[in-house]
Amino acid sequence: MSEGMNDSGGYYRRNLKLTVAYDGTRFHGFQRQAGHKLPTVQEALEEAWRRLTGEAVKATGAGRTDAGVHALGQVVNIRTQVASIPAERVPYAFNSVLPKDVAVLECVEVPLAFHARFDARWKRYEYRVLNRAFPSPVERLYTYHVSHPLDVEAMQEGARLLLGTHDFSAFSGSEAKGRSPVRTVSRCDVWRDGEKVHFAVEGDGFLYRMVRTIVGTLLQVGLGKKEPGWVGEVLASRDRAEAGPTVPACGLYLVEVGY
Amino acid sequence: MSEGMNDSGGYYRRNLKLTVAYDGTRFHGFQRQAGHKLPTVQEALEEAWRRLTGEAVKATGAGRTDAGVHALGQVVNIRTQVASIPAERVPYAFNSVLPKDVAVLECVEVPLAFHARFDARWKRYEYRVLNRAFPSPVERLYTYHVSHPLDVEAMQEGARLLLGTHDFSAFSGSEAKGRSPVRTVSRCDVWRDGEKVHFAVEGDGFLYRMVRTIVGTLLQVGLGKKEPGWVGEVLASRDRAEAGPTVPACGLYLVEVGY
Repeated sequence: MSEGMNDSGGYYRRNLKLTVAYDGTRFHGFQRQAGHKLPTVQEALEEAWRRLTGEAVKATGAGRTDAGVHALGQVVNIRTQVASIPAERVPYAFNSVLPKDVAVLECVEVPLAFHARFDARWKRYEYRVLNRAFPSPVERLYTYHVSHPLDVEAMQEGARLLLGTHDFSAFSGSEAKGRSPVRTVSRCDVWRDGEKVHFAVEGDGFLYRMVRTIVGTLLQVGLGKKEPGWVGEVLASRDRAEAGPTVPACGLYLVEVGY
Repeated sequence: MSEGMNDSGGYYRRNLKLTVAYDGTRFHGFQRQAGHKLPTVQEALEEAWRRLTGEAVKATGAGRTDAGVHALGQVVNIRTQVASIPAERVPYAFNSVLPKDVAVLECVEVPLAFHARFDARWKRYEYRVLNRAFPSPVERLYTYHVSHPLDVEAMQEGARLLLGTHDFSAFSGSEAKGRSPVRTVSRCDVWRDGEKVHFAVEGDGFLYRMVRTIVGTLLQVGLGKKEPGWVGEVLASRDRAEAGPTVPACGLYLVEVGY
């Protein structure tokens, strides 16, 4: 299939770059599951566009977020033959038919060659911990509750050891054989905001469950079970068994994608 | 039934004052509905205590929040014959059996005569508006979305006119006949925090849907449809038809109760 031509042999007129937010609670991740009927964000977007225009498109996401992971700024592109909806009206059109747990925040027209995933230069994820004695019912689906007081400075010290280009095998659940486990982390920060502790991890790409395993490892330091320097030892080991547990999906947000 | 004696003729040993948070989304308000099977927070607390101790108690809430209204600091008292659980362990015990959308944050023992509702001197409610172009999926159940930019200073100017002791009939849906519509509002503030606009209303008591109708009225000012001084005219009219619409329950939180 040549550039610009769709499955039915028609030519795409436009490539739309969407900024999308969603509540991951109900979804089995971003990506459509072949042969499954489980709800995905991709399917919700494609179905919304079909309802709006009658056209079947593919919604390509920058990050294939896991089940339960939220997004504040996922980037999605759709190639379409439909020229009737101006780009600036596309968010309103989408939001009029999307379920309430997905929203399109922005739409700009981009060159036909633009690909949300392959062209992404970096992604930023945030992880939110509620750090107080008792859980908060209104935040239970959007934070991970840790009752023991966390040492944020110690976690920040450990986080610094992950900056740069490394083999992140120790922080990956199960990477596909043959794919490189080397990634570059350009930001890894931890800060407190009242009862919340935020983690921000930015990089050129992430292994499977890498952010959630980094956070789980830093939490071992924050809980005082390990020294900050241990994070560097975990990284150097390239052994998943050395890292902390993978924390739950509900605290994770895909925040921004850079091109 | 004399003070300190329960329905079955036994004597209460303790009166427990609980601070309770809940996500109101699923509940048909705080108060148990006679003859209905609809879930209420009161029922969830009473059922939790029954599972913990086998004892049937009445959970008395300071504020009878409506369906969908959240709480960060509702106060509840239960009179009990059970002396085996120390007050400081009561939150852990409750939280081990409560559904995840209700949590007990604190428990202190108070004199048997203490009554969470009758002894309350003031209550503070907050209302949270998400004020940006597009809705936020992860905040949809916990804020009210207003897409048009709000003028916070104008709303604050209008809010000031509600301070003091007044007949608040204009802000009440339907008050029971014969009950006084006079209340004292000791705080009425509006402020912006990024994309959120917060309203705090504190007073010695509130008429039915009064906070949500005050917010709906202030929003008319924030949207530029009315001048701040109009809020004073609404108040003086004592006519519900003059006020703005009652805003949805999902943005409202019972935050604190003073004794």
